[in-house]
Amino acid sequence: MTVMNRQVRLAARPVGLPKRSDWQFTSEPVPEPGEGEVLVKVRYLSLDPAMRGWMNEGKSYIPPVGIGEVMRAGGIGQVIASRHPDFAEGDSVSGRLNVQDYACVPGAQLTKVDPAAAPLPVYLSALGMPGMTAYFGLLDIGRPQPGETVVVSGAAGAVGTVVGQIAKLKGCRVVGIAGGAGKCRYLVEEMGFDAAIDYKAEDVRAALRRECPKGIDVFFDNVGGDTLEAALANLARHARIVICGAISQYNNTTPAPGPKNYMALLVNRARMEGMVVFDYADRYAEAVRDLSAWMAEGKLKSREHIVCGLDGFPEALLKLFTGENFGKLVLKVADA
Amino acid sequence: MTVMNRQVRLAARPVGLPKRSDWQFTSEPVPEPGEGEVLVKVRYLSLDPAMRGWMNEGKSYIPPVGIGEVMRAGGIGQVIASRHPDFAEGDSVSGRLNVQDYACVPGAQLTKVDPAAAPLPVYLSALGMPGMTAYFGLLDIGRPQPGETVVVSGAAGAVGTVVGQIAKLKGCRVVGIAGGAGKCRYLVEEMGFDAAIDYKAEDVRAALRRECPKGIDVFFDNVGGDTLEAALANLARHARIVICGAISQYNNTTPAPGPKNYMALLVNRARMEGMVVFDYADRYAEAVRDLSAWMAEGKLKSREHIVCGLDGFPEALLKLFTGENFGKLVLKVADA
Repeated sequence: MTVMNRQVRLAARPVGLPKRSDWQFTSEPVPEPGEGEVLVKVRYLSLDPAMRGWMNEGKSYIPPVGIGEVMRAGGIGQVIASRHPDFAEGDSVSGRLNVQDYACVPGAQLTKVDPAAAPLPVYLSALGMPGMTAYFGLLDIGRPQPGETVVVSGAAGAVGTVVGQIAKLKGCRVVGIAGGAGKCRYLVEEMGFDAAIDYKAEDVRAALRRECPKGIDVFFDNVGGDTLEAALANLARHARIVICGAISQYNNTTPAPGPKNYMALLVNRARMEGMVVFDYADRYAEAVRDLSAWMAEGKLKSREHIVCGLDGFPEALLKLFTGENFGKLVLKVADA
Repeated sequence: MTVMNRQVRLAARPVGLPKRSDWQFTSEPVPEPGEGEVLVKVRYLSLDPAMRGWMNEGKSYIPPVGIGEVMRAGGIGQVIASRHPDFAEGDSVSGRLNVQDYACVPGAQLTKVDPAAAPLPVYLSALGMPGMTAYFGLLDIGRPQPGETVVVSGAAGAVGTVVGQIAKLKGCRVVGIAGGAGKCRYLVEEMGFDAAIDYKAEDVRAALRRECPKGIDVFFDNVGGDTLEAALANLARHARIVICGAISQYNNTTPAPGPKNYMALLVNRARMEGMVVFDYADRYAEAVRDLSAWMAEGKLKSREHIVCGLDGFPEALLKLFTGENFGKLVLKVADA
């Protein structure tokens, strides 16, 4: 019997929120790995806000997913056949596995992960791309100093929770912006944030003024839009804004207005800088070493929100934009 | 006979472009300098886009001019009485002299200038605040490297011409954005720019694409608005945007939309940073040394647009916003 590989392909460029009809479900025989390749059974896939951008035509930091192509996704899986000397059957690996049951990938593009050191989904979360993004974005671009005030938007998301926890480790006052009382409580009570602002319940600009009496030194932005404007209105001198994402804008069908108070950068001699985590690929090991050590010491928590089943991919992805996820959103594809 | 000091005071906070009725013309006896003070006869006043901001209420990088106060302005004058050991009658000095015939200023706030080394108005131009702004904004924030492409908006203005000439000295390709064929010709033929874009005659975004085939490495922005958006749409990787001003926005009565494509900062891993020249006060001497040397070597030109008469101050100021000035706008108050 031929084992089949279910795949989720991009069928159309979505307008606004992606609909189920923007996807095509196909099935083909599982391929044989070629020389240097590894066949991986996909176990967990990372669902990321950035995926929405990959679905659009046009220039960005990586090429878009083509119509008819299997949707791009990072994931964790188990090697079931290897023609690469570094990998053996049974190894757990992470890499760009895409939205499918089986991935046939050049070994050079995979990284071995240790299932004894952390649960596999953590390698898509604090020890995966979100962790790398938080680590380099905050420390390399934001450069927080002890005693400074760090504000992070999308604070209850995969990147935001790690940003806030690292900032606390660095001796900063940390304020998170998130949607809903539950998330805000979680940030303060479980993640050790000093304060959390519920953007659904209060005026963010006024709340930032209250929670950041000396102004914001580092603003790590995952959200954009009004949230960015509210932060610009509350900068401290020589503030640094890390532009990591703009999830509030990704499903817009017309360009959103920009931050109309960007001249706050001049008034405060402040800096706004974009970052793309892939630029730090040759330093991931450094981040993993620090992040793992902090986790082992109990100073850093990783939280995943796991949704099951490849068939549910289209709906699972939407949770990122409705704000339903609590921590890193992960799609479980197979048990083992 | 008592010598009178004519003064121009802020009478009302302007809405949009300042009108003559926003000013009050008063006259009072010339004061006697107190201990440590210097009495200066004002000869030239600097007219700057930033003045428009000082006329508004609210937090900025310096406090606003109060209603009824003499309008703030930098200027050059001659010492006519001194009770400060560093200054003697006849000395030429620069400092915050304000819009009046005579200024009584603490000696510590004045700087001696050498009328033999350069014509006095140059000390309000390439050797004054515009020169300092260009020097530190470009070299400290923009950090151009040889072979890079530098774009400056408001290129025919006091800051813009110096920015472009320094960038040429540093081995860059330099593109200016200015209004009108005359200014554009002047930038290329007299100031040595590689290209100039007439924003009144062509689409700036398309023109930048044509003139900056490898993208913009440094964008020095004096203009804001659509011009900033056009530059954001044409950034090179790791571009630096220096936010020096936003003259297109200063007379807006409602907040203008911000740069809606600011996420270009993320795509290009680019940086946008505000600068205020006063922060570099302790390094002005360094800039003056370099700028003077370049002028002496014929590598840097300063051009002033001189308008005569204190009475004409309200109308002279407007030239900045209608784009009538060609080089640094200076108000001549007295001959000697």
